[in-house]
Amino acid sequence: FSTFAHSKHTNEKKPCKRFVLYYHDILFNGTNVANATSATTANGTMLGNFQLGKLVVFDDPMTKDNNLLSTPVARAQGFYFYDMKTTYNAWFSYTLVFNSSEHKGTINIMGADIMDEETRDLSVVGGTGAFFMTRGICTLRTDAIEGVAYFRVEMDIKLYECY
Amino acid sequence: FSTFAHSKHTNEKKPCKRFVLYYHDILFNGTNVANATSATTANGTMLGNFQLGKLVVFDDPMTKDNNLLSTPVARAQGFYFYDMKTTYNAWFSYTLVFNSSEHKGTINIMGADIMDEETRDLSVVGGTGAFFMTRGICTLRTDAIEGVAYFRVEMDIKLYECY
Amino acid sequence: FSTFAHSKHTNEKKPCKRFVLYYHDILFNGTNVANATSATTANGTMLGNFQLGKLVVFDDPMTKDNNLLSTPVARAQGFYFYDMKTTYNAWFSYTLVFNSSEHKGTINIMGADIMDEETRDLSVVGGTGAFFMTRGICTLRTDAIEGVAYFRVEMDIKLYECY
Repeated sequence: FSTFAHSKHTNEKKPCKRFVLYYHDILFNGTNVANATSATTANGTMLGNFQLGKLVVFDDPMTKDNNLLSTPVARAQGFYFYDMKTTYNAWFSYTLVFNSSEHKGTINIMGADIMDEETRDLSVVGGTGAFFMTRGICTLRTDAIEGVAYFRVEMDIKLYECY
Repeated sequence: FSTFAHSKHTNEKKPCKRFVLYYHDILFNGTNVANATSATTANGTMLGNFQLGKLVVFDDPMTKDNNLLSTPVARAQGFYFYDMKTTYNAWFSYTLVFNSSEHKGTINIMGADIMDEETRDLSVVGGTGAFFMTRGICTLRTDAIEGVAYFRVEMDIKLYECY
Repeated sequence: FSTFAHSKHTNEKKPCKRFVLYYHDILFNGTNVANATSATTANGTMLGNFQLGKLVVFDDPMTKDNNLLSTPVARAQGFYFYDMKTTYNAWFSYTLVFNSSEHKGTINIMGADIMDEETRDLSVVGGTGAFFMTRGICTLRTDAIEGVAYFRVEMDIKLYECY
């Protein structure tokens, strides 16, 4: 007496869809309006020396290769904040917004960005449009850090539930 | 060697539960304590002219029709912020809290509110109580905007996983 | 014409995994850097007298019993904010980070913390590593409040989808 989706595919071992995108974040410094893609909306606190509490809102381009100037295939819209007093460590929640002829839809992601680790897994908790109801894992790997001005993260998106 | 829920119903084509509710947001302006349902907890930044970074916390009534004075059937508790420098665009994460004789439980929702589009889909990522473990799509459509004082959004909630 | 995970177990009646952990939150007061585990990054607003809008970022220890001094088995990293004008009421989104020989992985949680109720259910919306793709319910029960200095919450984590 169970009813299942006609077209849902789930396989723990192998993603039903997988792609790698690069996230580019250029923090607003008060003067770089033209280039900035994110801004600090709440400052870090005095609890430790690692910006704990600093909250950044972003609308960042996502590209297929690690070149900031490549044509974006999606936008990442959401926020992150720093949350540890003993090291840099962050927490993210955001939406990948696809609006091309190839893909229209969104992927929603949240989780801890344990910056001391080479790679860290966040949860893909839902999707819409071309990514209707999807779930999976988004693996982050820092690809470049240029002071406070710019950082780039590789996001390896593995979807294990596709419809 | 798989075990499935005895009563889970999933169907990609047709929601197992669907209802439309109206979200009413009255932003605190410093004097309207009696009427306000939300307040700005972090101000917009200087990155663009569209309040990027403005973060609003809300506890908003949800009604079955679009009349602000109708008896609420749920509360929407959560936050939104603006996140683009070139246009008004927002990101939401919130819980619909039902506490009536008809429904007791919650529905958790997150996603991008692409305000330039007529309708935009957010993800229903979980539920509790009467909405135990549910997933689905919540489609937003702006129903009214009265300056900065009040806005109303139609939320069409389609649940595709019911237990 | 459907494909299912080889090892997914779902049962609405009985969790496939369940454990109780205690969350300890010591709010930074400007001087307790050594002990504090969380800090206010946006202050409460003037909408009501219950700190509506106060936003706290945390990296809190999770222990197996309710003793603050017990060895943590996980960290809870995320944020909460107060969101009602008529009573204390909060909203949480966070990640449980496990990094022991027993468990390596994360659990992602979000939802309303209706503080006036004895227990309240949040959604487990995803997981990684040892908790790959999990979903479930996290039931909160306030275990102790010591003024503004410290509070402790029992979290009863019931996972209904395990892989």
